[in-house]
Amino acid sequence: MTGTEDAIRPAPGANVAAVLHGVGDLRFEERPVPVPGPSEVLVEVRSVGICGSDVHYFEEGRIGDFVVRAPLVLGHESSGVVVGRGERAARHPLGQRVALEPGVPCGRCRECREGHYNLCADVVFFATPPVDGALTRYVCINEDFAYALPDEISDDAGALIEPLSVGLWACRKAGVTVGSRVAVAGAGPIGAVVAMAARAAGAAEVILSDVNPVRLERAVRLGATGTVDARTGSLASEAADSNAFVDCTGIQAAIADGIRAVRPAGVAVLVGMCASPEVPLPHAAIQTREIWVTGTFRYANTYPTAIALVASGTVDLDALVDAHFDLEESLDALQASRRDPALLKPVVRVTTA
Amino acid sequence: MTGTEDAIRPAPGANVAAVLHGVGDLRFEERPVPVPGPSEVLVEVRSVGICGSDVHYFEEGRIGDFVVRAPLVLGHESSGVVVGRGERAARHPLGQRVALEPGVPCGRCRECREGHYNLCADVVFFATPPVDGALTRYVCINEDFAYALPDEISDDAGALIEPLSVGLWACRKAGVTVGSRVAVAGAGPIGAVVAMAARAAGAAEVILSDVNPVRLERAVRLGATGTVDARTGSLASEAADSNAFVDCTGIQAAIADGIRAVRPAGVAVLVGMCASPEVPLPHAAIQTREIWVTGTFRYANTYPTAIALVASGTVDLDALVDAHFDLEESLDALQASRRDPALLKPVVRVTTA
Amino acid sequence: MTGTEDAIRPAPGANVAAVLHGVGDLRFEERPVPVPGPSEVLVEVRSVGICGSDVHYFEEGRIGDFVVRAPLVLGHESSGVVVGRGERAARHPLGQRVALEPGVPCGRCRECREGHYNLCADVVFFATPPVDGALTRYVCINEDFAYALPDEISDDAGALIEPLSVGLWACRKAGVTVGSRVAVAGAGPIGAVVAMAARAAGAAEVILSDVNPVRLERAVRLGATGTVDARTGSLASEAADSNAFVDCTGIQAAIADGIRAVRPAGVAVLVGMCASPEVPLPHAAIQTREIWVTGTFRYANTYPTAIALVASGTVDLDALVDAHFDLEESLDALQASRRDPALLKPVVRVTTA
Amino acid sequence: MTGTEDAIRPAPGANVAAVLHGVGDLRFEERPVPVPGPSEVLVEVRSVGICGSDVHYFEEGRIGDFVVRAPLVLGHESSGVVVGRGERAARHPLGQRVALEPGVPCGRCRECREGHYNLCADVVFFATPPVDGALTRYVCINEDFAYALPDEISDDAGALIEPLSVGLWACRKAGVTVGSRVAVAGAGPIGAVVAMAARAAGAAEVILSDVNPVRLERAVRLGATGTVDARTGSLASEAADSNAFVDCTGIQAAIADGIRAVRPAGVAVLVGMCASPEVPLPHAAIQTREIWVTGTFRYANTYPTAIALVASGTVDLDALVDAHFDLEESLDALQASRRDPALLKPVVRVTTA
Repeated sequence: MTGTEDAIRPAPGANVAAVLHGVGDLRFEERPVPVPGPSEVLVEVRSVGICGSDVHYFEEGRIGDFVVRAPLVLGHESSGVVVGRGERAARHPLGQRVALEPGVPCGRCRECREGHYNLCADVVFFATPPVDGALTRYVCINEDFAYALPDEISDDAGALIEPLSVGLWACRKAGVTVGSRVAVAGAGPIGAVVAMAARAAGAAEVILSDVNPVRLERAVRLGATGTVDARTGSLASEAADSNAFVDCTGIQAAIADGIRAVRPAGVAVLVGMCASPEVPLPHAAIQTREIWVTGTFRYANTYPTAIALVASGTVDLDALVDAHFDLEESLDALQASRRDPALLKPVVRVTTA
Repeated sequence: MTGTEDAIRPAPGANVAAVLHGVGDLRFEERPVPVPGPSEVLVEVRSVGICGSDVHYFEEGRIGDFVVRAPLVLGHESSGVVVGRGERAARHPLGQRVALEPGVPCGRCRECREGHYNLCADVVFFATPPVDGALTRYVCINEDFAYALPDEISDDAGALIEPLSVGLWACRKAGVTVGSRVAVAGAGPIGAVVAMAARAAGAAEVILSDVNPVRLERAVRLGATGTVDARTGSLASEAADSNAFVDCTGIQAAIADGIRAVRPAGVAVLVGMCASPEVPLPHAAIQTREIWVTGTFRYANTYPTAIALVASGTVDLDALVDAHFDLEESLDALQASRRDPALLKPVVRVTTA
Repeated sequence: MTGTEDAIRPAPGANVAAVLHGVGDLRFEERPVPVPGPSEVLVEVRSVGICGSDVHYFEEGRIGDFVVRAPLVLGHESSGVVVGRGERAARHPLGQRVALEPGVPCGRCRECREGHYNLCADVVFFATPPVDGALTRYVCINEDFAYALPDEISDDAGALIEPLSVGLWACRKAGVTVGSRVAVAGAGPIGAVVAMAARAAGAAEVILSDVNPVRLERAVRLGATGTVDARTGSLASEAADSNAFVDCTGIQAAIADGIRAVRPAGVAVLVGMCASPEVPLPHAAIQTREIWVTGTFRYANTYPTAIALVASGTVDLDALVDAHFDLEESLDALQASRRDPALLKPVVRVTTA
Repeated sequence: MTGTEDAIRPAPGANVAAVLHGVGDLRFEERPVPVPGPSEVLVEVRSVGICGSDVHYFEEGRIGDFVVRAPLVLGHESSGVVVGRGERAARHPLGQRVALEPGVPCGRCRECREGHYNLCADVVFFATPPVDGALTRYVCINEDFAYALPDEISDDAGALIEPLSVGLWACRKAGVTVGSRVAVAGAGPIGAVVAMAARAAGAAEVILSDVNPVRLERAVRLGATGTVDARTGSLASEAADSNAFVDCTGIQAAIADGIRAVRPAGVAVLVGMCASPEVPLPHAAIQTREIWVTGTFRYANTYPTAIALVASGTVDLDALVDAHFDLEESLDALQASRRDPALLKPVVRVTTA
C-alpha cells in the first residue's frame, strides 16, 4: 500500500467524542474523522486512562492558567492502532498498536534543542485548552510521538505509559538510583507510579504517606516498602534521611513534612499541583542541608524506558487499573474517583481489539 | 628545626582577643596562647574580615539555632603566619603566610566521604558558638585547612579568600558557566563576591539588584554588567531568562522577583539568610519551568580555586576592602556597616608584617 | 514586504561557487541561485573561514568515511546577510547579518530529542559530501540555524563563531570551569580556539604544547598562560595534575603525553582527527586515575554562547584571522596553511558590505 | 565495658595467617594478634572471598607496579566479628558482625575531600604490598571501614559486599539507570557482579559475552538477560546501541567489540585489568559518537548501598559462592579457579559462628 493510499484511506467508523462544554457538562458528539498531516498518523483509540487533570477540568473548568473556553475533548493517556498515515509518515505500518505521547513540541526552540522538550513553549498537548484529547474514536498525532507497543503490553498498559512517564520523570529529577531511600507524599495514582518507577530504578526503600489507609495498603502491593499514616505520623520521622522526597499532593503540610525527611544534599521534587501559586517552603532547611527543590512539568524522553520496563515485566501497569468504562460511560469514569477516593486508575475503552 | 622543636616553640607575644560576652558587649582579654594539636599549626593572625554574621552575633547574640551562651571570639575570615606546628604537622614551614579555611570537618562521616564536607554535622567552625574565631592574636587550626599564600596575595586578600569562597560556591551550585546570564539580588558584600565569582566563571551578564544606588554603582566597578534599582525595577523584567539567580538578601520579595527571572531548567540559589525559617516560594513557577532551587551552607573545596583566581589577578579582592581597623578597634569594625550601609568589607589588622 | 514576496525575491547577482571536482581540482562555476525552502533563508555569503577539513578534502579527496564523489562546494565557517526567505521563515528580517551554524539536524530522532543534536545521523552539514558548503555567493539554510549578529561582531568574526564553537564544545566536554588547569596539545587554529574558550570559561592556566615556536608565541598572545615545546618538553611534566587535557593534534604521542598530565578523575577530550581509526591509549592510567576520555564531533547549542562572548569583547575572534582572500583566490586560501604552518585562519571574503 | 577494657581485651585464640612468601609459596604462620589503634576495631575474620587479584599475586608475585617483596597476607573480601576496640572506637559494640571495606584512605588529601577517596594516593589497602590482608584470624581496621551487617546477610555475603561494590561502582561510572541496555564483556566473577548490580539499578537488558558457555549459562541465572558466545558472535551486533559497555576482561578484542556496541553519548567502563599498560582504542568511534571511556579503580561510598541491596533480597550474593574452604585449605582456594574456569567465587571460612 502506498503512502498516498494510506493518506486517503477512509476511516472505518464514525468519530464519536466525549466533549466538555463547561463545568460538569460532558456531551457525546460525532465529529469528522481527522485527516493526518504529512508527518502524522491517524490512530483509532483503544484505551484512555482518566487522570486527575481530566477530572479537574470537568469539575472546575480550568487548571491554573489553562481555562476551558471552547468545547474540549478530554483524555491524554491513550493507546490505539494506526489506521492511516500522512504522506511522509513511514515509521509505523497500518495496524500497529501504539502508545501516544500526548505532547508534541516544536522541535526548534532552545528548550527543544537542549533536550528538555517538555519545557517547549509551543508544545501541543492533548486535552489542554484549546487542544482536544483522546476521549474520541480517532485522533491524529505526529508519527514520532506514537510508540510501537510489543505484544507483551496490553492496550490499557499502553495508555498508562503516560502516567508511568510522570513517575519516571519525577524519579529522574529526584536522582533515584540503586539503593536510594525515597519518601513520597500521596498514595494516589501519581504516588503509585512514582513508587513503581522508584522501585524499578533500584530504590531500596520507598515510603509513602497518605491519609487514606486503603490507598496505603494498595501502595504496598504495588511496591512501596513502607507507609506512613499522615494523620498520625510523618515522613520526617519515619522516612528520615531519605535521598529524595517526591510530593504528589500539592499540600503544604505534606511538602513541609517531606522536605524535612530529606538528607543533606538530597532532592525534593514537587509533582502534585498546588491550589495556590506560592507555598511556604523551609528556607533554613534548604540552606543548611543544601537540599535541591524542583518540580516536574510533564516529562521528556521517557516513553522508550517506560515501554521497556512494562514489556520486560518489571513494572505491571495493569495492576493500576481498577475500573473500566465504555466511551459512552465517560461521565461515570470522570466521577469515579470522586465516589471512591481509593480508586487509582479508571480506564475508558474507546474501542477494543 | 625538628617537629618536636616546632611543637614547643614559645609564641612570641601575648594573645589578646576581642571577646563577645553578650549583645553589644565586646571585651578585650588576654588569653593563653593556644597549643597546637598534633596535626595543627599555630598561626599569628594578620587580617580578619568582618562578616555580616559577626555583626549579627554582636547585635543579636544568635543566628538561628546558634546562640552565644558563653564568651565568644568573633571572626572567621582570616589570614596569618604559621608560627608553630604540632608534632605531625609538616605541610607548612614556619613563617608561611596562610589563608585559613575556618571550618574543619570530621573527615569520617558520610557527608565528608561523599565530598560535601561543608554538610558535616561535626564541623568545628570559627566564631560559631561554642567555637572561638580569629579576632585574636593566635589561633590553632588543622594544617590541612591552612593554605599557603603566594606573594601576589596580600594579607587582606588572604582573609577574603573566605567570602570569595562563598561566591564561588554559590556560582558552582548555580551552574554558572561561560556565557551565562546571572541575576543577583543584593549588592552587599555577598552580592559583590557572587558577581566577582560569576564573572571569573565566564558569565557574560551579571545583573545585580539593590535598593542602595551607591552599592549598585560599586558593584559595576567590581564586575557587574548591569544593575536594577529594586525600588523601581525588577530582575524578572530586567534580567529575564537568566540561567541562574542568586539571592543574597534573604528577603522574600527579592527571592520571588529573582526566581521569576530564571529561564526554564535554570537554577535559583539562596545564599542570604532569612529572618524566618520558612518563606513562600513560587510553587507553580518551579513546576512549570522545572527550576531548581537550592541554598548554600558555607562551601567545600573552594580555597585552591579562590587562591588561584586572586594570584592570577583574575579577581581583585583588595578592591572589596573599604575600611581598616586595629584589633583594639574591633568594636568600630563591627559597627561600621551599621553606620554606612554601602560599606562592603571592613578588615581588622590584628598584626601586620 | 510579505512572506510571499520574500520567497520570490530575485537574487541580486550571479551565484559563483568554488567547486572541488577532485583532489587539487578547484573550479569556479556559476550555479543557479538556490531557492529557500519554506523554513529557510537565502543568505548572501560574506566571510568564510578556511578549516583544516576543507584543506583535507582539497588535498586528499576524503576525510575518513566521507569521500568526495561528486563536485563539492567547500567551506562551513560562514557569515552572511539574509536576502530572501521561505514562506514560513519569519525569524530574520531581510538585511539581517547572520552567522550560519553549518549543520542542520533532523530534530526528530532520539539524539535530537535528547539534546545532543550534533550526533543526529541525518544531519545535513555544509561541505560534507554530498552537501555543498559556503564558498559560494548564495546559500540557503534553515532559519533556526542562522543567528543574528550584533553590530559588535564583524563579518569575519561571524564566520569564526563556528571554530569558536568547536573550542567551547571541547571545553564543555572537558568540564573546564573557573580555576581549571587545562593542558592542550597543538597550537594550530583548533588549539587556539580551545585556549580562548578555556580562558573565557575561567581556566586559571592553559598550557599549550606544539613543535612550532611561532605558533606557541601566538597562542600566548591569544590567551595561553604557558607553553611547552613538544620537541623537548612534555605536558606530563609541565602541565602535570591538569583538570583536563584537550588534544588538537590527532597524534598518538601527543595524546599519550597529554593523558599523563591529567589529574585523578580528570578529563581528556580528543578533538584532533587521527590518521588511523584506532590509537593506543594508556589503559592503566585511565583505570588507576579514573580518567574520563571522550571525543568531540562538531558541537551543539554553542552558537548563542559564542556570540555572547564575542559581542561582549571577552573573546576576540578577529585576532585569529591572518590572511584574507577574495572568492576568486580560494585556491590560494586552501594552500595558504601549507605554505605557512604557523598560519591560523585564512578567511575568504565572498562579498563585502 | 569501658573503652579501656575493650582496648586491652585479650584475643581468644592464636592468629594463624596464610602468608605468601613468593610465587606459589603460601605458608601458614602464627602471628601476634594485632593491637587496634585508637580508632580501630579488632576483627575476628569469618569469610574471605578469593579474588582474581589474590590468584594473580599468588601466581605472578605482582600486579602491575605492585610487587610482592616481603611476605604478604592475601585476601581483601572479608567479613568478621568485632572482638576488640581502640580507645576512641565507639561505633560498633563487641560481637557486632561486620563487612570490611579493605581500603582506608587518608581522609585529608584533595581526592578524599572531593569525595573520590578511592583515588587517594595514601590509601592503605588489604593484600596490596606491603599491606597484609584478611586470610588470617585477626585483623585491625579503622572502625569507619567496618560496616554493621544485619542478620539477613550471611558471613559469606558480608565478604562479597566487596566485589559487589566493584560492580556497583562500574555501573555508577557507566551511568546505568532504569531502562538501560548494558553490554558486558566477561562472565567471570566481575562480569557477574556487574550484571547483578546493573539489574539492581534497573537495567532492562544486560547482555554478557564470554568464550565459556558454562559461565554464560550461570550469568543468566544470576540476572543477565542475554548472552553472546564471543567465539562466534559480538556485542557490537547483538548488544548494539547499548547505553553502556563494561569490560571485565582486559582483552583488547573484547574492549574494541564492546565499544562498538555503545550508542552515541554512551559510556564504556574498563574494569578488567590489562596485561599491557596501553591498549589500542577506537579513536574515530569515540569521536564520532562522543563516547565516554573511563576505568574504575576500586570504589567509593558503595558499602551502604551494597548492604542495603543484599539485606533487602534484591541481590543474592550467596548465589555467587560455589566452593568453600577452611583457612588451612587456602592453597586449594587459590588454585580452584585455575582448575575450573567456570568457578565464580571460592570462599575461605577462616572462622565460623
